Amino acid sequence: MTTEVRAYAASSAGAPLAPTTIPRRAVGEHDVLIEIRYSGICHSDIHQVRDEWRPGNYPMVPGHEIVGVVTGAGAGVTRHKVGDRVGIGCFVFACGECDACKAGLDQYCRKGTATYNDTEADGSPAYGGYSTHIVANEDFVLKVPESIDYAGAAPLLCAGITLYSPLRHWGAGPGKKVAIVGMGGLGHVGVKLAHAMGAEVTVLSQTLSKKEDGLRLGADHFHATSDPETFRRLTGRFDLIVNTVSADLDLDAFLRLLRIDGTMVNLGLPSEASSVRLSSLIGGRKSLAGSMIGGIAETQEMLDFCAERGIAAEYELIRAEAINEAYERVLASDVRYRFVIDAESF
Amino acid sequence: MTTEVRAYAASSAGAPLAPTTIPRRAVGEHDVLIEIRYSGICHSDIHQVRDEWRPGNYPMVPGHEIVGVVTGAGAGVTRHKVGDRVGIGCFVFACGECDACKAGLDQYCRKGTATYNDTEADGSPAYGGYSTHIVANEDFVLKVPESIDYAGAAPLLCAGITLYSPLRHWGAGPGKKVAIVGMGGLGHVGVKLAHAMGAEVTVLSQTLSKKEDGLRLGADHFHATSDPETFRRLTGRFDLIVNTVSADLDLDAFLRLLRIDGTMVNLGLPSEASSVRLSSLIGGRKSLAGSMIGGIAETQEMLDFCAERGIAAEYELIRAEAINEAYERVLASDVRYRFVIDAESF
Repeated sequence: MTTEVRAYAASSAGAPLAPTTIPRRAVGEHDVLIEIRYSGICHSDIHQVRDEWRPGNYPMVPGHEIVGVVTGAGAGVTRHKVGDRVGIGCFVFACGECDACKAGLDQYCRKGTATYNDTEADGSPAYGGYSTHIVANEDFVLKVPESIDYAGAAPLLCAGITLYSPLRHWGAGPGKKVAIVGMGGLGHVGVKLAHAMGAEVTVLSQTLSKKEDGLRLGADHFHATSDPETFRRLTGRFDLIVNTVSADLDLDAFLRLLRIDGTMVNLGLPSEASSVRLSSLIGGRKSLAGSMIGGIAETQEMLDFCAERGIAAEYELIRAEAINEAYERVLASDVRYRFVIDAESF
Repeated sequence: MTTEVRAYAASSAGAPLAPTTIPRRAVGEHDVLIEIRYSGICHSDIHQVRDEWRPGNYPMVPGHEIVGVVTGAGAGVTRHKVGDRVGIGCFVFACGECDACKAGLDQYCRKGTATYNDTEADGSPAYGGYSTHIVANEDFVLKVPESIDYAGAAPLLCAGITLYSPLRHWGAGPGKKVAIVGMGGLGHVGVKLAHAMGAEVTVLSQTLSKKEDGLRLGADHFHATSDPETFRRLTGRFDLIVNTVSADLDLDAFLRLLRIDGTMVNLGLPSEASSVRLSSLIGGRKSLAGSMIGGIAETQEMLDFCAERGIAAEYELIRAEAINEAYERVLASDVRYRFVIDAESF
């Protein structure tokens, strides 16, 4: 038996988000019912609402940066209890049996279910976090420590783990020089995390307009990529470049900024294929890599790390009526640095 | 005071190789004089003779796959003695002081001197191994164990280390599935090395024409890349793909053959920029990397490994008069698998 709850949905590809009701499944033995408090707006919500990736399922309720409180739990639930502050990120199921899952890389499980724009195991559509409530298997529900800013924690579930995982995997820490390319929703969290991990952090942003913020958030250096001098001055500088920008960059120019054995890891998806000279990699044993969010265990580790270090996203709190306007502002890079929706307004 | 020795040189860009004499410097305090016995022909010799890379220095004496015997040594020489079997690879000087040198990655030293088509510290042109003798600083001279086939050892100085270094760096060994793309001068040594390291080795060659050889040299599997079924069947298979091919490949197709966290390392230089979809990297935390030869210490390690495991290149021994014809055959991929020149014929 399902329950109807309030939500904001796009009724068809590219339609504006509008209030509606959607069914949430009955709380199963291993499920928790979560009353959502805050939902972040991720750039990928816009891509999916507008059907710019794989064919979308409509009506679509976006949202995979979810925090709230447990208000119900199945009989078999052991990880969470009513009253707990919890979160849901980009996926709500992984098989647990494949090589990826066994390696703790369940974000790459081929049998996984995304939080929205996907199909649940029972065949029903998966609806995301732009809603008052959600029901999910407890294994894919994170504990959100009380000490993190509640609304600022929401974007950590996607933006946070998307940066945390590659920073950890490629060893950001003391003695390492890390560049964060782009200081938007992803990049600004990357600056905080890399700084907290002990790395020397440089922001490479198109202009210097966010320099003051960047330094305040923990960057040691801030350079404009629109200034050719930046690329001359920083040649051979970085151990790790984390590229949060989806636009098509001159990858060879950025690869020149890496030291020997350096890695440039890409988190965003340009719509077109990219051009790269293999000589940019060969002349210094460099790597061009990619990374996608993180596994459930690592997401919990990230939340605990953020709680300990006082890290959350910088956000503008909005009401649901402002979602469509917020989308336009995200596309115009006019947000510092993440929109978070107050779930009371759904 | 210099000594004139016999050599084969290209007098100008693209000119055929022809007999000549060249000066070799007096044996300095830390130099050894080597009587060359065998010189391998590397594909990069042809590129440089034809001036297809950086502007070339002419007359050009190519050759950086050199083995011979020490026939003279400066007063300060401690590493080698007259009568020793030795070798010279792709470079004859590195500064010893930069980060690369200190990390044992002297192949990436920016102050290094290539074995030919470069300028020695004293301002004289560096002439390579297509010659009867060479004088070099002892620190850049390798010991060639007596147990390695003498002529077959020459190509190890470039082809051998070019494969050995990335195979070691990216952990080829027991339990790892390694693909070698291309079975030419580089690839066939890669098959032997990866097999000796304990990896499960797959050759990905354009056709099956070298299948029998591949399996004989140590490959466990051999597939034709001209068969689209190969790419379907091997999806997600490899931990490491080592690409020895300079031609422009469909990188995305090869990246699909990697497992999560897999790396495709490129050793050859296509003349044009390559196209790659960053989604091919992001959807599995994959890396596209490059690697260039290896350092002196690692080259010695490789030679010792090869001696212990009975590994040398497969070669066709030719006389110097046949160099120009051999070049044409290399370009036509008509050599199994490396040409080696008998230095008596220079």
